[in-house]
Amino acid sequence: MKKIRIGILGYGNLGRGVELSIAQNPDLELAAIFTRRDPSVLRPLTDHAKVYNVKEALNHKDEIDVMILCGGSSTDLSSQSPAFASHFNVVDSFDTHAKISQHFKSVNTSALLSKHTAAISAGWDPGLFSVNRLYAESVLPLGNSYTFWGKGVSQGHSDALRRIEGVSHAIQYTIPIESAVKEVRKGTHPQYTAREMHTRECYVSLKPGADMDKVYAEIVNMPNYFSDYDTSVHFISDEEFMKNHSAMPHGGFVQRSGTTGAKQENNHIYEFSLTLDSNPEFTSNILVCYARAVYKLFSEGLYGAKTVLEIPPAYLSLQPIEKLRAELL
Amino acid sequence: MKKIRIGILGYGNLGRGVELSIAQNPDLELAAIFTRRDPSVLRPLTDHAKVYNVKEALNHKDEIDVMILCGGSSTDLSSQSPAFASHFNVVDSFDTHAKISQHFKSVNTSALLSKHTAAISAGWDPGLFSVNRLYAESVLPLGNSYTFWGKGVSQGHSDALRRIEGVSHAIQYTIPIESAVKEVRKGTHPQYTAREMHTRECYVSLKPGADMDKVYAEIVNMPNYFSDYDTSVHFISDEEFMKNHSAMPHGGFVQRSGTTGAKQENNHIYEFSLTLDSNPEFTSNILVCYARAVYKLFSEGLYGAKTVLEIPPAYLSLQPIEKLRAELL
Repeated sequence: MKKIRIGILGYGNLGRGVELSIAQNPDLELAAIFTRRDPSVLRPLTDHAKVYNVKEALNHKDEIDVMILCGGSSTDLSSQSPAFASHFNVVDSFDTHAKISQHFKSVNTSALLSKHTAAISAGWDPGLFSVNRLYAESVLPLGNSYTFWGKGVSQGHSDALRRIEGVSHAIQYTIPIESAVKEVRKGTHPQYTAREMHTRECYVSLKPGADMDKVYAEIVNMPNYFSDYDTSVHFISDEEFMKNHSAMPHGGFVQRSGTTGAKQENNHIYEFSLTLDSNPEFTSNILVCYARAVYKLFSEGLYGAKTVLEIPPAYLSLQPIEKLRAELL
Repeated sequence: MKKIRIGILGYGNLGRGVELSIAQNPDLELAAIFTRRDPSVLRPLTDHAKVYNVKEALNHKDEIDVMILCGGSSTDLSSQSPAFASHFNVVDSFDTHAKISQHFKSVNTSALLSKHTAAISAGWDPGLFSVNRLYAESVLPLGNSYTFWGKGVSQGHSDALRRIEGVSHAIQYTIPIESAVKEVRKGTHPQYTAREMHTRECYVSLKPGADMDKVYAEIVNMPNYFSDYDTSVHFISDEEFMKNHSAMPHGGFVQRSGTTGAKQENNHIYEFSLTLDSNPEFTSNILVCYARAVYKLFSEGLYGAKTVLEIPPAYLSLQPIEKLRAELL
């Protein structure tokens, strides 16, 4: 059987995760890695992997069935995804919730025009968590939904810390508040503010001469990121930072409790949870599944952008549908 | 907006659950209830609900957009679903896992020929659990999956008990074996047979003159349902049955733990769980969502049988896809 040829654009944590994930999936093969850096300095994990500068991407169009965009931030993807969708089938994990509709529109326009297929926002939130919010709200129309994240590292919040003057290294852990989690799991339908569901814990090392009090104040009062939460800040050395804060665990859960019955007397709890040792590697595994789905959709002539909400679950699987119906349903 | 007109075939626990669920969904309306009993003896929960004998169903073809089949799968659905798919769009919760492929084929043939759409096996297992087994195995190709049920009442198994000659009332509780659950949650990837994960506990009252030994043997040797499990059978009076066994809780979870990384050094746990006060009412809510999905598929000319694995999540929702992308993704 001809394998699906995957291109990787961007070789950071996500790109390396995608490379590893391809090796777990026998119907896929790594076609090439594209980087903004000098290709000769890259050390791929795969023997004999082809590495090119991103400027050469179009010369290799015919060698790639699906390009997985592993750009580090949403600012990369908002221009990269529509641009690459003009020439390739693409998958991204665009994760700025407030801008997804606009991003969808841009990618969809490019992909429809060039007759390609794209999957956007295909991670775990947005992604698998979104799928579960949708199933939960559909099957329990009367109820309340909750999403808890963590304990885990938030890249966006860690980036925000690193932009503060005087900060050397920084990481932010999002921590669900145990009493809130317990209440939600009882099915009591509580109403919570952001502050009542999560705390934010920051580990920061400072550059020589930095003003600790000033950095502290800037963190806890930062709007959008920290001011709506109870935030704790731990100042540590660079050495301690490197030793204890290099792993990237994450996780969380989506929960909905809802009622049925003539008097809404029956309660039901729907819960979906993830506990991840490596956030980027798990996200990469999801991207790779959606690359397979994109290839299937493209092969059927279903062009344009899709989200995880629109893609049938079976498209993610390596197995033929007859086998899934017989063995997994 | 024109509402989707739902027909209910069979007015037992599931049928009543569907009736209640329609009231939770503003885009749906109850068109009619069809029963094998004398329609005049039925007391629907909905004011002015139309009730007909099932023999009259075809006379009301044009009043029904989707017929939800609320019979038990052991005998009813295997003939009802293909027969009704010749004249109606249908949804069922056919739950004999070993016979799903054959059931799919029968319903698909009928539905394609008559240009209708059908969703089969649309409950929670098969159903939402199947969807989660599929997502989990796709995103974590290297790992082990487990499904635990209960403690709770299995409708399919209870129904199978009630069809045995001489049985008056019957209920079956599926009970997860606690030591197995603990082992799985430790992430030790144990290998279990069906018998090592669950026990099945039956409470049965007999009709006068029934042969207890014969009923017992028929239960514990029943293929697909009981023969692969340690099954206990308690014979009780009708009075005790009514007093202690009228609630129908259920639940369970699908779990997969899998690895990523160059040396498979990172572990990830995917878990989906349900805790249900009323199994039939929750199942009914799922059937109703898939009735909406069937109507959408039919409206797009997508005929034939589908399973939950093939139906895009967004088809279940009352909300337009643009709103789902903007607010829920």
